[in-house]
Amino acid sequence: MSDTKIRIAIDAMGGDFAPLEVVKGSFLAAFESDIEIILVGKEDELKGELDKYDPNPALTILDAPSAVEMGESPASAVKAKPNSSVSLAAKLVLDGGADAFISFGNTGAAMSAAFLHIGRISGVLRPAIAVTLPTARGASVLLDAGANTDCKPDVLKQFAVMGSAYAKAMLGLKSPTVGLLNVGEEASKGSERLKEAHALMSGVEGFYGNIEGDDIAKGTVDVIVCDGQTGNIVLKLAEGLSSEIFSRIRIAMSSSLTTRLAGLLLKKSFQDLKRELDYEEYGGAILLGINGVAIVGHGKSKAKAVKNGILVAAKIASKNMLADIEQHL
Amino acid sequence: MSDTKIRIAIDAMGGDFAPLEVVKGSFLAAFESDIEIILVGKEDELKGELDKYDPNPALTILDAPSAVEMGESPASAVKAKPNSSVSLAAKLVLDGGADAFISFGNTGAAMSAAFLHIGRISGVLRPAIAVTLPTARGASVLLDAGANTDCKPDVLKQFAVMGSAYAKAMLGLKSPTVGLLNVGEEASKGSERLKEAHALMSGVEGFYGNIEGDDIAKGTVDVIVCDGQTGNIVLKLAEGLSSEIFSRIRIAMSSSLTTRLAGLLLKKSFQDLKRELDYEEYGGAILLGINGVAIVGHGKSKAKAVKNGILVAAKIASKNMLADIEQHL
Repeated sequence: MSDTKIRIAIDAMGGDFAPLEVVKGSFLAAFESDIEIILVGKEDELKGELDKYDPNPALTILDAPSAVEMGESPASAVKAKPNSSVSLAAKLVLDGGADAFISFGNTGAAMSAAFLHIGRISGVLRPAIAVTLPTARGASVLLDAGANTDCKPDVLKQFAVMGSAYAKAMLGLKSPTVGLLNVGEEASKGSERLKEAHALMSGVEGFYGNIEGDDIAKGTVDVIVCDGQTGNIVLKLAEGLSSEIFSRIRIAMSSSLTTRLAGLLLKKSFQDLKRELDYEEYGGAILLGINGVAIVGHGKSKAKAVKNGILVAAKIASKNMLADIEQHL
Repeated sequence: MSDTKIRIAIDAMGGDFAPLEVVKGSFLAAFESDIEIILVGKEDELKGELDKYDPNPALTILDAPSAVEMGESPASAVKAKPNSSVSLAAKLVLDGGADAFISFGNTGAAMSAAFLHIGRISGVLRPAIAVTLPTARGASVLLDAGANTDCKPDVLKQFAVMGSAYAKAMLGLKSPTVGLLNVGEEASKGSERLKEAHALMSGVEGFYGNIEGDDIAKGTVDVIVCDGQTGNIVLKLAEGLSSEIFSRIRIAMSSSLTTRLAGLLLKKSFQDLKRELDYEEYGGAILLGINGVAIVGHGKSKAKAVKNGILVAAKIASKNMLADIEQHL
């Protein structure tokens, strides 16, 4: 794809600060890169936002008369609104009008739009949500982060393949290691389902074996495979515990004049550290198993996070991730 | 039990620092309280350790010719060694010679000894391991921490009853709240198993409903119910992430002269905080569903932790926890 520009379709109506921050972030991304961006949403509103900036031919608008709201039931809203911004953005990927689509809106709606309008890679049993986590050794990919509560062994095996392809594209790793989240290292540990999954995954390139809960923050493996129920609990626990520890540190530092002084001296280092460890900073979740690149950013994303999301989407779209998945399934 | 003294049987050969630190901790507990302690283990060795202290009639020795070692397969070792220290300590509870037993050795061996020699409370489907966790609101009980990988809905419901009885005895709560760890608040969330468990648990006193991963550190409920696979992953993730964050803080504080100075000023506060948040500080895990009080302390326990473990065991033994469980099952 060296001479063709990467084209990203954006659900410009999705997100807590849409369309204002989404358009601003898109402008920044177009300004800093040679990515072409198609803003999908209500034309009038988007034109009004775009008029704030110097004209940039890399930014175009595709009119979408409706949008899926945060409160709506995702699957039915996507079906009922085929011309919503998220649906039209997904359809652009199907039609070849875009190389990836990204939404900062309702996660369920983005997933439904991807399922309905783009469809799965041939052979994929269940698409999964993958996220990137900060670890002691940099970053790891975790999947499934919540798309499928129950996962059979063959589904978990496919997650290993898809997660590995994503880690190559996202983290630039040549041969990512893959671990199965379990209650012990030995192949004989865990539920029947996990034992079977372990056996099936032995055939997957880079399979490390079982990992345990404490391996997550250590970054023992590049790709962490688990069912969506476990993944959801792991992510929310990690975010919650991390924020609880930092809030306790704030309290400890405000206990006396001495600790307050120390707190001032450490302010900058702690802000950096907090950002490094912030699970939300990694923002984007990707839907793996879909026959296109579909990314869901955090609903609270402002311009900078939107810009980063677009750059990540473009990076993934420029790699052979989909072919890599199809080939290794 | 106001005029009868509480008697605790201790597997004095279990633990990384046994018998030295176990005997020292037992001496401290007997010195500070009116608990009677039966040290179970190799008589010669225990006598040698006890001779270091002033005589205390509250400390007696029961000779056990063998011990289960850390490397042994727990269940078979307990069966093969009916006169091991852990087995004889458990038998004392069955025979009425002790009100509780505690081991700082092999967790699996202590569990096996409790199953084999004490047995379950009538009606209990599966005993569970409960632990106490630090939270923003103090402490919560989590079960199952790893005894049962898979748990059917009726088993999870029993965990709610047992966890509630333990929270009353351990945390002194009159009517503990109980949450089911799941992927969303609504009753319709999660796997089929969790949906059924939610429905069954609605009948349990104090049932709060589903909680999510971020509710754990917040302390939203007093008792967190999950299967042993999830519980194991949750505990290890929490310990691992917590220790990773503190190690990153250490690194951040050593980056410059200024941050090193600040680090010195904060040393005491941070040590206190780390201890408060240390999942291992709460040490003791209890086997719930066993027809007796059976506690497993951390293998690395030194005298102070041993003493605390004994005091906790005595506290639990002085309550009506077993009757409370039987009545509410």
